[in-house]
Amino acid sequence: MITQKHIDTLKQIVGNNNLLTSHEDLVTYSYDANTLWTSMPDIVVLPNNADQVSGILKLANEYEIPVTPRGGGTNVNGGSIPIKGGIVLSTSRMNRIVEINKTNLNAIVEPGVILQDFNNALAKDGLFFPPDPQSYLGCSMGGVVAENAGGPSCLKYGVTKQYILGLEVVLADGSIVKLGGVTPKNRTGYELAMLFTGSEGTLGIISKICLRVLPLPTSTKSILVAFSDVTVASDTVSDIIANSIIPCRIEFCSGPGWQKVLSPGFTLGDHTLLLIQVDGLPGTVEIEAQQIIDICIANKAADIVLAKTADEEDAFWGLRRQAFAAFAHKSPIRLAGDVCLPRDRMTEFIKKIKEISQKHNVNVGFTGHAGDGNLHPGIPLEKNNDDQLKRARECMDELIDLTLSLGGVISGENGIGLEKQNHLKKAMDPVAFELMKKIKDILDPNHIMNPGKIWEKNDR
Amino acid sequence: MITQKHIDTLKQIVGNNNLLTSHEDLVTYSYDANTLWTSMPDIVVLPNNADQVSGILKLANEYEIPVTPRGGGTNVNGGSIPIKGGIVLSTSRMNRIVEINKTNLNAIVEPGVILQDFNNALAKDGLFFPPDPQSYLGCSMGGVVAENAGGPSCLKYGVTKQYILGLEVVLADGSIVKLGGVTPKNRTGYELAMLFTGSEGTLGIISKICLRVLPLPTSTKSILVAFSDVTVASDTVSDIIANSIIPCRIEFCSGPGWQKVLSPGFTLGDHTLLLIQVDGLPGTVEIEAQQIIDICIANKAADIVLAKTADEEDAFWGLRRQAFAAFAHKSPIRLAGDVCLPRDRMTEFIKKIKEISQKHNVNVGFTGHAGDGNLHPGIPLEKNNDDQLKRARECMDELIDLTLSLGGVISGENGIGLEKQNHLKKAMDPVAFELMKKIKDILDPNHIMNPGKIWEKNDR
Repeated sequence: MITQKHIDTLKQIVGNNNLLTSHEDLVTYSYDANTLWTSMPDIVVLPNNADQVSGILKLANEYEIPVTPRGGGTNVNGGSIPIKGGIVLSTSRMNRIVEINKTNLNAIVEPGVILQDFNNALAKDGLFFPPDPQSYLGCSMGGVVAENAGGPSCLKYGVTKQYILGLEVVLADGSIVKLGGVTPKNRTGYELAMLFTGSEGTLGIISKICLRVLPLPTSTKSILVAFSDVTVASDTVSDIIANSIIPCRIEFCSGPGWQKVLSPGFTLGDHTLLLIQVDGLPGTVEIEAQQIIDICIANKAADIVLAKTADEEDAFWGLRRQAFAAFAHKSPIRLAGDVCLPRDRMTEFIKKIKEISQKHNVNVGFTGHAGDGNLHPGIPLEKNNDDQLKRARECMDELIDLTLSLGGVISGENGIGLEKQNHLKKAMDPVAFELMKKIKDILDPNHIMNPGKIWEKNDR
Repeated sequence: MITQKHIDTLKQIVGNNNLLTSHEDLVTYSYDANTLWTSMPDIVVLPNNADQVSGILKLANEYEIPVTPRGGGTNVNGGSIPIKGGIVLSTSRMNRIVEINKTNLNAIVEPGVILQDFNNALAKDGLFFPPDPQSYLGCSMGGVVAENAGGPSCLKYGVTKQYILGLEVVLADGSIVKLGGVTPKNRTGYELAMLFTGSEGTLGIISKICLRVLPLPTSTKSILVAFSDVTVASDTVSDIIANSIIPCRIEFCSGPGWQKVLSPGFTLGDHTLLLIQVDGLPGTVEIEAQQIIDICIANKAADIVLAKTADEEDAFWGLRRQAFAAFAHKSPIRLAGDVCLPRDRMTEFIKKIKEISQKHNVNVGFTGHAGDGNLHPGIPLEKNNDDQLKRARECMDELIDLTLSLGGVISGENGIGLEKQNHLKKAMDPVAFELMKKIKDILDPNHIMNPGKIWEKNDR
């Protein structure tokens, strides 16, 4: 599909040092943080600025070459995989932090800036960007916006879309458009920046981002709580919120290492763990932590550990972070669920996981952002075991259908990508689905932008 | 344009008691909370549900009858005025609070629910909806969403769009579409609900709204501060934020009544007043209030009054609210500005107001949400004084151009409506403007939805 002439043109646009064509290089752009799907690109281009992105898209649009945008490649749903070959457009060299403005509580970044680098820079001014996907050490800000990223802290702080003030986007035809601005209030026409937020690279390439940021909280407290019954743990989450306490994070925890941070003499066994964090001024977090402990005691928690030092707190959250890595290490191939339930229906969902997994004869583990009702049921897979993959998909399908029947959604924070396309239609109002198609056709009439994602074959 | 046959059909759709045709009735739907523009509708319909709205729009779409949606009619930019006649569609009878869910921190309302009624109902569960336009006693939730309403509290809590979880919308062709859902995280395709948020009724009629709500803060403190120099007051706002304190409100105050609440012996004269409120737990607000007082003292405030009781605090905010009513009473006709500056450019803007107003020989008063940089320069007008109106418009144009040159926006929270159409094009990227047109054409190909608003003549 890509000819030498195209490659020569791309070289002129980005320069000889900013494109990759060797087999070894292309392989590294053929998969994401899951390894369930792989597909080779024909070429990888690494533009330095919006003008170069524009040149690339003009060429791709003229010759109908697929373009798959790629940030950190940390997604787990196939979103950054060049499933139709063509160009992978990596934003990794557009990685400048343009401005951090403490007085305006905003910041401007390019899409290739890594989330953790952004937060490190913000911290020097006593600021932070709240959404905290577990991939924060490697994910890029362009991906954070294109996926409308979430994370544990969204319970208190909301998701990425709630922080977007303005975007610069390169459209499929190569035109560069500025949307929104830098002010916290802005009523200049329709909310077009929101159209690209969460669009998973199917509508354009985000080339600059202006975000609202917040002052770093001066204090945090973290509490680790064990419950003998998972449904009581889930109900406790609801009880905390219904008591008008909004912790910044309430997480279901699993994975290795927890036994050693629990109370001496307490045996973890198959207890369910909640890790809860509150933030704010020192006085506030003391009060809220005690209120949470009281609720947990009333709900017959089996063990409660309040982190006494910053080191202890870090240890708790280190273990929480390692859960994904441990799971990924043990099971590089897996189905990664991402359902989000109304908080008051979460317990019903959890009650049925075991029955459904047994029916399909697969293991379902889950962690998740309990405070948001955002659960990640994960099914580890063996390589080349088609029968197991089939059963796992049937199990995940049933979990997703259960979620929808409880008023939840098929994805809370990971997006549709390659894995949830077959669920999108049933999860959406058909009129809305047709409207999405029309918007796609306006912005990308040749369907070059991240083709094969979000939409099922023949849909777009 | 409307025939007896149309009226008969509308009667069948909404019933005899839910439409108005007498001259006296129509007059009351011919203006908004400003009286700068008036225009008579041919008929007013008051549907009870989405199906009736659908029937009305199907008819209007078939016969290309203009439809102007109207909530509380409290807007000040002409947005709810039937400038092209036709149908006014009032949502006032779709005023049910469908659900308030404390565990899920969300609520579902119909568009005709008055904001204050909504907050009164929420308060019974210890909850609130943060955006607080000054019109909260009369504005409807449909209008709050369609205008993406702001208010003083947006400094800390963000604007309406940051609270929208899901919408039901009736499109121009009468189809009813559900967008988003009820969960705080939702990655089901594009962010279509955001397209209707702030669309000022030009894309569809919002028939149901699911909103995120928050626990009511348990405590507040308010501080009234006088500065001898308006620019020092403005700089103090920046200093507070840059010190990592985010009050829920920082307001510039003017209007009558303030002298009596200031310190005994202090003469207000032409001092500038800031009214600042912090909220949270009792311990927190004490600390933050003291930090703010310290900053104000360092900035040589001329007078500082900390409200000692809830009654004193109410008195402060009562005076703030009355400013708009007092201005409206004195000047029922006026130009109502709504610029939003980057916080660190606000002082530059304020410095030039006097010079620009003198140049055009008009009075410019201003109040505004200082914390957000969202200022409301207001120019009182005499009835039938065309020369004065011309000078006032020229003055406001210059203030808007100044705003744009400082990186601000032409509207922070009021929207475009009838008054700012001639500024929209210069305030937007031309590619974005064309994209807006395409979206309008997809959703409302016959241009029946709130025609004459947002767009200039011949644009749409």
